[in-house]
Amino acid sequence: MNLSIYTMGGTIDKVYFDDLSDYVVGEPQAGEILKEAQAAISFTVNEVLRKDSLHLTDEDRQLLRERVAADPERFILITHGTDSMVQSAQVLKGIADKVIVFTGAMSPARFKGSDASFNVGCAVGAVQSLPPGVYICMSGQVFEAGTVRKNRAAGRFESLG
Amino acid sequence: MNLSIYTMGGTIDKVYFDDLSDYVVGEPQAGEILKEAQAAISFTVNEVLRKDSLHLTDEDRQLLRERVAADPERFILITHGTDSMVQSAQVLKGIADKVIVFTGAMSPARFKGSDASFNVGCAVGAVQSLPPGVYICMSGQVFEAGTVRKNRAAGRFESLG
Amino acid sequence: MNLSIYTMGGTIDKVYFDDLSDYVVGEPQAGEILKEAQAAISFTVNEVLRKDSLHLTDEDRQLLRERVAADPERFILITHGTDSMVQSAQVLKGIADKVIVFTGAMSPARFKGSDASFNVGCAVGAVQSLPPGVYICMSGQVFEAGTVRKNRAAGRFESLG
Amino acid sequence: MNLSIYTMGGTIDKVYFDDLSDYVVGEPQAGEILKEAQAAISFTVNEVLRKDSLHLTDEDRQLLRERVAADPERFILITHGTDSMVQSAQVLKGIADKVIVFTGAMSPARFKGSDASFNVGCAVGAVQSLPPGVYICMSGQVFEAGTVRKNRAAGRFESLG
Repeated sequence: MNLSIYTMGGTIDKVYFDDLSDYVVGEPQAGEILKEAQAAISFTVNEVLRKDSLHLTDEDRQLLRERVAADPERFILITHGTDSMVQSAQVLKGIADKVIVFTGAMSPARFKGSDASFNVGCAVGAVQSLPPGVYICMSGQVFEAGTVRKNRAAGRFESLG
Repeated sequence: MNLSIYTMGGTIDKVYFDDLSDYVVGEPQAGEILKEAQAAISFTVNEVLRKDSLHLTDEDRQLLRERVAADPERFILITHGTDSMVQSAQVLKGIADKVIVFTGAMSPARFKGSDASFNVGCAVGAVQSLPPGVYICMSGQVFEAGTVRKNRAAGRFESLG
Repeated sequence: MNLSIYTMGGTIDKVYFDDLSDYVVGEPQAGEILKEAQAAISFTVNEVLRKDSLHLTDEDRQLLRERVAADPERFILITHGTDSMVQSAQVLKGIADKVIVFTGAMSPARFKGSDASFNVGCAVGAVQSLPPGVYICMSGQVFEAGTVRKNRAAGRFESLG
Repeated sequence: MNLSIYTMGGTIDKVYFDDLSDYVVGEPQAGEILKEAQAAISFTVNEVLRKDSLHLTDEDRQLLRERVAADPERFILITHGTDSMVQSAQVLKGIADKVIVFTGAMSPARFKGSDASFNVGCAVGAVQSLPPGVYICMSGQVFEAGTVRKNRAAGRFESLG
């Protein structure tokens, strides 16, 4: 399997910089996660942006759509902040012949007990098993784009109505 | 999603006991992994055996088949030692109307940098995305039972021929 | 050994809150670190403040001094943000008959690969081995208060001139 | 500070080899622990043996004594299996002008939640704070050689009667 990974930033990639006494979105973690898990697949990591997803603009989402639409690969994994993942997934609908799976994390990949490795695993398992379309893998579930929301208070993604 | 988990032991569940100065197969880790990853799914963990998979017998595999066949749920995840996962998957073929996914780990779930959380994530993503059948999720790939082997020297699972 | 721990906040205690998309100083981690390390000592954790140490005031340091001076125990461990640890240590000088050791972390205790557990271990080893006085344990070294600075650019504590 | 580290094996250095389905004593971990903790000290790691300490012989302990006695440095840290650490510490008594601190771990350094990093930190804090002699740093305590035993049932080191 050849997997094209696009990274938009978000909690999954947050690291701590002592000289700022603050957290910032850092290097994409998806590739490190795949290596640590000894995944024997071919993949490329394409860094698009390093943004908290609350700060993503319509232009940013169009840029992501153009990059993905121009990619020759069938299997696409996108790491993204959780707060606007649902909106970005909507924008990518309609790209033909691709299985596109979004994932991210509630806790940075660098944290002990982070959900990042599980979530990327879930997305990797889903992307090679699903028909073409746009999906979100979060909270241990695979949702079709347009059928899901983040329930911030409960700390999980869940089906709409 | 309701997920029935069956655990057979294997590296994924190995823990260290200082009074033995040795490692033994311990409590099933799959449930802990799902909780740590904040997976918002219903699941039950059914412990079948705590064996290194080199020591599994034909009777053990029949027991697993009977337990799974009698389960009313559609989605089945089995954690299992890697050395004979391929054989056990063969024994479960032919159970109707169930998606059965085997996974395990090359390194115990309790180890830093273990592949366990990623692999269980991969299996959870696959089980809800695939048609009925028996599958193995290892090395970041989803294989149909009967098409895969463990390449011990390379430390990975790979397609046959 | 009876150990009195005072916690002032700082990076060591930083946790991530997804609903704020931000890090804040959380529960004191020193007690958790001692439990995880199976330290067989008696200790109490006294939470004084939960502040980034850049925000500590003269009043805050006086409060810490009063709390420590009134403590009947001989062995005192203080967890503290790294940016003004040196100043706080100066303020505690002159308390009689106590071994007072400051420590903290460059990376939150909850992070994989954090220096927090090592640093608290270093402080625990030093506090029971030193004569009365005020010390800082950081970067694998034990410094007397007044002889040390944080070299922010190099990411370490080091002896003054 | 210049620190000479001698490694004898033991649980702290145990790693898992999937091709053996077993744990063996692997590369010394003390240097990795110091690097991960960003310890700003000079150190050398001298690997003496890779043995479970139940298998150490009188000759092994004499070898350790000779290596340490011939070392020009004042500060000596020894990582060692816990089951016979007490005996080895006895054998090193009487070496002049050196502070010699033994440590190890109840759980391998590679395990999540291992006591290894804390224990090495504790030994590093103690070694630079103590007068010449032979000591054991385990369970968050610093013991003089000859005053301590491992209580295997309780999983801790403790003072002799």
